[in-house]
Amino acid sequence: MLALRFSNSTLQLVGVDVPAPAGEALVRVTLSGICNTDLEIVRGYAGFEGTIGHEFVGVVESSPDETQIGRRVVGEINAGCGKCNLCASGDSRHCASRTVLGIVGRDGAHAEFLRLPAVNLLPVPDEVPDEHAVFVEPLAAALGITERVAVTGNTTLAVIGDGKLGLLCAQALAARGASVTLIGKHENKLQIAARRGIDVLEVDRATKLNHEFDVVVEASGSELGFALAVQLLRPRGVLVLKSTFHGKTPIDASRLVVDEITVVGSRCGRFAPALELLARDLVDVDSLISEEYPLNAGISAMQRAAEKGVLKVLLRP
Amino acid sequence: MLALRFSNSTLQLVGVDVPAPAGEALVRVTLSGICNTDLEIVRGYAGFEGTIGHEFVGVVESSPDETQIGRRVVGEINAGCGKCNLCASGDSRHCASRTVLGIVGRDGAHAEFLRLPAVNLLPVPDEVPDEHAVFVEPLAAALGITERVAVTGNTTLAVIGDGKLGLLCAQALAARGASVTLIGKHENKLQIAARRGIDVLEVDRATKLNHEFDVVVEASGSELGFALAVQLLRPRGVLVLKSTFHGKTPIDASRLVVDEITVVGSRCGRFAPALELLARDLVDVDSLISEEYPLNAGISAMQRAAEKGVLKVLLRP
Repeated sequence: MLALRFSNSTLQLVGVDVPAPAGEALVRVTLSGICNTDLEIVRGYAGFEGTIGHEFVGVVESSPDETQIGRRVVGEINAGCGKCNLCASGDSRHCASRTVLGIVGRDGAHAEFLRLPAVNLLPVPDEVPDEHAVFVEPLAAALGITERVAVTGNTTLAVIGDGKLGLLCAQALAARGASVTLIGKHENKLQIAARRGIDVLEVDRATKLNHEFDVVVEASGSELGFALAVQLLRPRGVLVLKSTFHGKTPIDASRLVVDEITVVGSRCGRFAPALELLARDLVDVDSLISEEYPLNAGISAMQRAAEKGVLKVLLRP
Repeated sequence: MLALRFSNSTLQLVGVDVPAPAGEALVRVTLSGICNTDLEIVRGYAGFEGTIGHEFVGVVESSPDETQIGRRVVGEINAGCGKCNLCASGDSRHCASRTVLGIVGRDGAHAEFLRLPAVNLLPVPDEVPDEHAVFVEPLAAALGITERVAVTGNTTLAVIGDGKLGLLCAQALAARGASVTLIGKHENKLQIAARRGIDVLEVDRATKLNHEFDVVVEASGSELGFALAVQLLRPRGVLVLKSTFHGKTPIDASRLVVDEITVVGSRCGRFAPALELLARDLVDVDSLISEEYPLNAGISAMQRAAEKGVLKVLLRP
């Protein structure tokens, strides 16, 4: 089968064997999405080697759970040991021995087939097309913020960054009832949120504000975004870090101390509530799709995804 | 009167007028303590100009509250506007218009006299000598951690840094029932904590550990301390930032995201519980005193306080 693989510091499209299920489910990938994390992996983040990609929708070819066979599914990306206290409690996201699809020790989704534990798979409701279902992983990550920070109708919340992650965070948190302002540089991207009733603000105007928000989500992945987030938070406010990026970010730690800011790292969320938002059409993901490439043009697709202004690039095997 | 002042980038001992009370209490300073923040101010932190110093014990000379006159007191360092919602709720520590003794817009404690709002002053119990009472501000700051993070008998907690702040944090949190490990480089300083029954660990051995603690307090003020704290925290653990220092610290933000670490800035605490710990002799502060200088040797005292290995330097007007 064809797979987009990163090894020896090189990204290549190669022919490899279809993975042996080895007690897990085998999924034929219908559509996969390129995430910034894929781009970071190719820059050396996480030291991963293998097939990249962790956003997908597909159809189950084989599974130890026979009810899954032939079903259209998405899959949670963390596969735990199944034995530790965390896994036993049903949350393998922080299992110390976990593998992560296309990120840690497990081949990923930019391929014709992938394998995952059967327990990781969730059926996709009929009303959710593949082109929406492929967004479930990043949307779940956006909703995961609410597992880490209380967000209510009284929460004044800003999201910094109008890329695909920021647009998903803004929409997901607005769907949870927060009063959300999306801050970004691109009028056309801000309009995607504005059409859904979200307040939007150009970053140049945001830099004139101080102490305005209870919660600020940093989804720009930039040092300036972090500094702006600190500036915009009221004392004892909460800064949510969503971006994973390679390298170190210089921060003014004394501002965190003086204003007693809380910084909360947030990674993966649960898929079920994200699927529900998609099924109820509460989030516009259509506007986030920039382009679709066939998997055999995966190298070009990755280059395209890395260009400024491009939102989600999809791959179809 | 004599005052140790920083202005035009210069630290000087100068003769100035005794402050006019202007509706506040006038306190004759008996003893003051040099904090790292004083050293940072002289390096340009916070842009403060005026009399430095915020740790003190003294005697009330005059006050709008006549019951205070002649009393031995300590004083909370944040003076709020008295009108905003925060001040009205009794907590001026984040009042946007606050002044802070010897740090923001208000002359400080390394002088013969200072003034503070009467409401900021607390009487010192008779059983607490001046040499202990002068530690109430940094001890309150250490206890302030428990306002920001739940600390119970089940909390495994490490403090990084065996300077005076780290030693106070370790003792204060152990007094609150946490299982505390103090991590540092100096055998003689670690022994101060060990004598109080606190586990101690040389930093070279700590760097071999991973994911060991629920809460880590960074009290070393160094980039390496921050990185070690992240390494030592279990997933979803809490990193408490206590140090205020000038400049920027490079952090690996992606570790915060992947392990979903919470970073909590913590500044000032309330004085009453700190006075209680001192009155019950639950914290060894005697061992933290390196030297006492007369105020008229304040310049030398500041130089001494900045030397490696020195703990608290006191000034007596």
